[in-house]
This record gives sequence, structure tokens and C-alpha cells, in this order.
Amino acid sequence: MILSLDGMGGDQGPAIVFAGAQKALQKNGDLRFLIYGPEDELAGHLRHFPSIAGRVEIQHAPVVVNMDDKPAQVLRKGREETSMWRALKSVADGKAEAVVSGGNTGALMAMAKFAFRSLPSVSRPAIAACWPSERGMGIVLDLGATVSPSAGQLVQFSVMGRDCARILLGIPEPSIGLLNIGVEETKGTEELREAASILQTMSDTIRFHGFVEGNDMARGTVDVVVTGGFAGNIALKAAEGAARQVAYYLRRAFAESLLARLGYVFFLPALKRLRNYMDPRHYNGGVFLGLKHIAIKSHGGSDAVGFAAAINLAYKCAKSGLAQRIQQDMESIAMEPENKETENGAGS
Amino acid sequence: MILSLDGMGGDQGPAIVFAGAQKALQKNGDLRFLIYGPEDELAGHLRHFPSIAGRVEIQHAPVVVNMDDKPAQVLRKGREETSMWRALKSVADGKAEAVVSGGNTGALMAMAKFAFRSLPSVSRPAIAACWPSERGMGIVLDLGATVSPSAGQLVQFSVMGRDCARILLGIPEPSIGLLNIGVEETKGTEELREAASILQTMSDTIRFHGFVEGNDMARGTVDVVVTGGFAGNIALKAAEGAARQVAYYLRRAFAESLLARLGYVFFLPALKRLRNYMDPRHYNGGVFLGLKHIAIKSHGGSDAVGFAAAINLAYKCAKSGLAQRIQQDMESIAMEPENKETENGAGS
Repeated sequence: MILSLDGMGGDQGPAIVFAGAQKALQKNGDLRFLIYGPEDELAGHLRHFPSIAGRVEIQHAPVVVNMDDKPAQVLRKGREETSMWRALKSVADGKAEAVVSGGNTGALMAMAKFAFRSLPSVSRPAIAACWPSERGMGIVLDLGATVSPSAGQLVQFSVMGRDCARILLGIPEPSIGLLNIGVEETKGTEELREAASILQTMSDTIRFHGFVEGNDMARGTVDVVVTGGFAGNIALKAAEGAARQVAYYLRRAFAESLLARLGYVFFLPALKRLRNYMDPRHYNGGVFLGLKHIAIKSHGGSDAVGFAAAINLAYKCAKSGLAQRIQQDMESIAMEPENKETENGAGS
Repeated sequence: MILSLDGMGGDQGPAIVFAGAQKALQKNGDLRFLIYGPEDELAGHLRHFPSIAGRVEIQHAPVVVNMDDKPAQVLRKGREETSMWRALKSVADGKAEAVVSGGNTGALMAMAKFAFRSLPSVSRPAIAACWPSERGMGIVLDLGATVSPSAGQLVQFSVMGRDCARILLGIPEPSIGLLNIGVEETKGTEELREAASILQTMSDTIRFHGFVEGNDMARGTVDVVVTGGFAGNIALKAAEGAARQVAYYLRRAFAESLLARLGYVFFLPALKRLRNYMDPRHYNGGVFLGLKHIAIKSHGGSDAVGFAAAINLAYKCAKSGLAQRIQQDMESIAMEPENKETENGAGS
């Protein structure tokens, strides 16, 4: 299994890419990597990871896409010199099975659409992520690729999300919910109500639960939460922020008194397991769906643990043929592609 | 200070309304209440709260708005017989200063718009709430009154949110952020980008920070987070859900081993303070803004502690003249009213 890595994505540069590759190899021993970036710089880093040298092929790419580069500009000018583009291109050319980058999300999506091409039956891509709920793991999409999807696009996201839950979480018939501001049929936008009424007619294909609300993400009311990129991005970040906020209060409470500090000592082993379970690095990785190949966006601020999780996610997607499965399923539902969306999200 | 209470709103009926009134009187001793609902039923409840009998006047209203009643239907038919309408009307008629209801949000907003009338300078109402961040308290709006506001409406929400932060939180020059899926100028919807460019020109009136993301709510990056009702509702509920989820994991971790249980005992006093600080009941109450009077929506599932918090919020809004302050400020910025929004949120 060969994966292609953008060696220059992420805030911390190539060091965490190599360290992440090393960690991922502990889990998936059959991995090999093509790592793209300035040759000399990457070679310097590789020297610190001699144990994986036999697993890594450094591929020269002189230019780095910066986090604040405008996607449209990068796409127009100098694209082919960048590590991001070359990493994507290697997958399109069949040299690797999937790509992982910690770089600029908008640029990655724009380039992925261009390098991979959309599936003919999918009108707009989506970014999906795994998300832990009180009942286990779930899938949330879209997280920013398509800011305001049409009803038909929300239906397509539902099918793609279902395939993700089947393949990544092993849930045979995942339940699907549309994120809304109330569960009543009259709530929300026109697009949502139309998508709900289409999904209701698709009971052979989709186990549609109906509308869900923001707090249903944590509750695990459904296996797949489907929404537009604007609401999805905001909901996920609001939830991440709130979880971090509680952890912050908790640290403060533990430091509050001698008694609390004593309690902390006894509680430490359980707390470590809790921290490990909640650790967002383990859920790192946004899966770009609706393209002919799989690209994984690793969080820009992630460390080696997070980058390894993103690599392992790419491994799982590639191994299970997620992109092909989606292609088949999308063709079989034979939806009319729509392209009405005005795109200004991560994809633009 | 006379407040009007819908005696029949909320999942638990009049019992928590009377218990909440009793609790609120402990904080604000000059409160008096007009409580609306079926006379016999309310009188039966009042008997259990003899200490507040001298502070309460029961006002007959035979009909109850149910949680699943359609707002438009309630508004058209039988409105004037309901406890909700009569509670609102008493404020419009100058018999009380503000109203609190735990009932159907959509019906309450629809009736409030009708009973109170909008401010002439405000094109659409918003619902605001206080929200605790790592840096203190903040204001978030809109939470569902206006699903997809125009740029001009987002600017109006910014001014109303600023006034809320000044009056409710005592922050003289609150910083304002527009909720978006990235902080770059090119991100998000057309309306957001236009609102941002208008707010940038208003530096005499508004301390505009720029775009903020979902996790900035928890961080307290700005004092006031402004967004449309769709994203705001989802963000707040996602954050509430995530906080509850962490608390759930924490309980599980405390029960995990004998050692953890021992730690829990030592940690208990600090945990109680933490729980108290994080308790969503203390932040209960959505403030309807942009109408000529103040209505407070208490969470339908709230208990007496939460309902008391909503009453105290109404007290604070009325005492400080929030509605009048907003009216003045909105007239002084003299925005052109816009009414382009297709409304399908809580307000419809």
C-alpha cells in the first residue's frame, strides 16, 4: 500500500510528516510512502528516521503552498511546482493509492478537484470526518467544501456519508440525520426540507432518521450527520471548542485546593484513559469525498500522533476502496447532478 | 418591577413557574408577577407557594399553546385566549415591564412580533443568549429567529448584540465577531463578506474584530458572536452537547476503578463548584431583540433554577431599559431596513 504525503503541509513542516509516517507504520506495516517537497530539506529530515528509510521515497517538489495562499491563485500559477500538487498527481497517475496533506484546506480541495476530477455522478465534493459521540463513533459531513449545498447535493452527501460509515466504522446500515434547527418538518431552509422529502422516498437505499439538532452530534442520535459546509464547519469547531473549554475548567478545578489536588492524583490513571479517548488527534483527518480518488486533510496544527491518524485513515479508505464504492453507489442512485451552488468555502 | 409570566409554558407546567418566581424573588426582592393561565389550575399551584402569594396576581387565560403547535396556526386562530398571548399583551399594554415564557419558541416569537411590533429601524428580530467562555461571559446571536439574515440584518444584530453586552455583561466597548468558517476575508457567504465590509466602516460605533470561527465561542475571542439563526442555533446546541458529552465521559471515568472513585471523593467539593459554574440553567434565557419590548424565552425543559435565571434576566433587561437603548441606537445608526429574508426559523 503506497500513500503519497505532502511533506510540506502543516504548521510544523516535514518533521511531523516523517514522525507521523513512522508511527503509522507501527499500525500498518505494509505501508510505503512517496513524500513530496524540496529534496534537500526532506532528505535532511529523513536522516532522523533511519528505521523508515526503506519505506520512504523522497520526491522533489520545489514550491510550498502557504497556509494563507489564495486557492484560486495557487491553482492558476505555479501549481505544478508545489509539493501539494505533485502529491495529488501521483495518486491520479496511479503511483499511490491516496494522499495526505496538512496544508491549506482550500488549496488542497481546489487542486484535488483539478487533479482527481469529480465523479461524473457527484455534483459537489464534501469533506467528512469521524466524530466520537456518547454512543460510539459517527460521521459528520460536509465540513466546508460546499458552503450552501442544494437539496440534491445534500442527498448525495447522505449517500457518501452512508458509505463512509459502512466502510470506516463498520456499520452495515447507518442511520442518517439532516442537521437542522428543530426536528419538525417545517424547520430550516428550503433546501433542507426538500432534501428530507427526497430522502424519505429513498427508504430502500438510505435509513433516513429525519432532522437532528446540534446536540445530537454528541448524543449519537444518528450514525451520519449530514449538513452544508458552513453549518458543519461551525458545529464541529463549536463542539471542539466546548470540549476544550470543559477540560480547561476541569484543570482549573483540580488546581483549586489541596483536597482537589489529592483527588487528582488518585484520579490520574482514569483521567489519562479519558484524555486518550477524547484526544482530537485520534480523530484527525478530513476525507475528501466525491472525487475519483481519496485525499485526506490532516489538521494544520497537528503533531505526529495526529498525522499518523490521518495516514491510517487514508490507509483504511484506500484499502477498502471507498472512492470506488462511492462511485458505484452514486451511479446506482442515478441522481441528476446539480451545480447551482455558489461556492465560497474551503473549495474556492 | 412587574414581570408577566406565561404560567403554562415549558414541559413541566406551572409548578416550575411558581417555584422559579419564588427563587427569583430571593435575588430581586422588588419583583411582582402577573401569571397567566387557567385560573383554577394556577390557584391550585399558588397554594403551595404561600410566601409569594402577596407578590403574584393570577390572570385568567383558558388556552395553552402546545410545544408542537404551528406558530402560524396559533397566531391566526384562538390566539387571544392563550396564556402566552395575554402575557405578552400585558407588556404591550404597559401593565408589566417584560415577559418570560417557557413555551413554544416559534409561537412566542410570532406572537411577540405581533403583540409588541418591531422597532421601525429593525428589519428582523434576533434571539440572544449569554454564553460562558474561558475568558468570562459573552453574547451569541441570533439563535433561530432569522435563519438567513441579509448583510444589513447582520449589521443590525451586531449593534443589538453590542447593546446586550454593554447592559447585561457591563462591558463598555464590547468586541464583535462575525461567525464564519475561516478568518480570511474571502471565506463564507456573500452576506457575511458584505456585513464585514459594512462593519469595517463603522469603527466609530462598533469595535469590529472581524471573522471568528466556531471554537472562538469557547475561547472568548470576542465579547459578541454574531451569526444567522441557522448557524447560531446549531453552534450553541453543538457546544452544549459537547460539554454534556465530556461530563458524561468524566462520570464514566470516575466510576471506572476504586482509585478513581476515591479521587472523586476528594475532588467532590471542587467538582461541585465546577458543575455550578458550568450549569446551563444559570445561562437560561433567550432575549428577543428588535421588538418594542423584551420577551425572554426560557428553555422548555428547564426547572425552577433555570426559570428563575430567565426571570432575573428579564428583570435585568427591563431595569436597564435594554429595549429602549436598542431603539435609540438603531435609530442613530439609521440603517435602511431590509426585508429580503425568507423566514422559516423559530419565527415562522
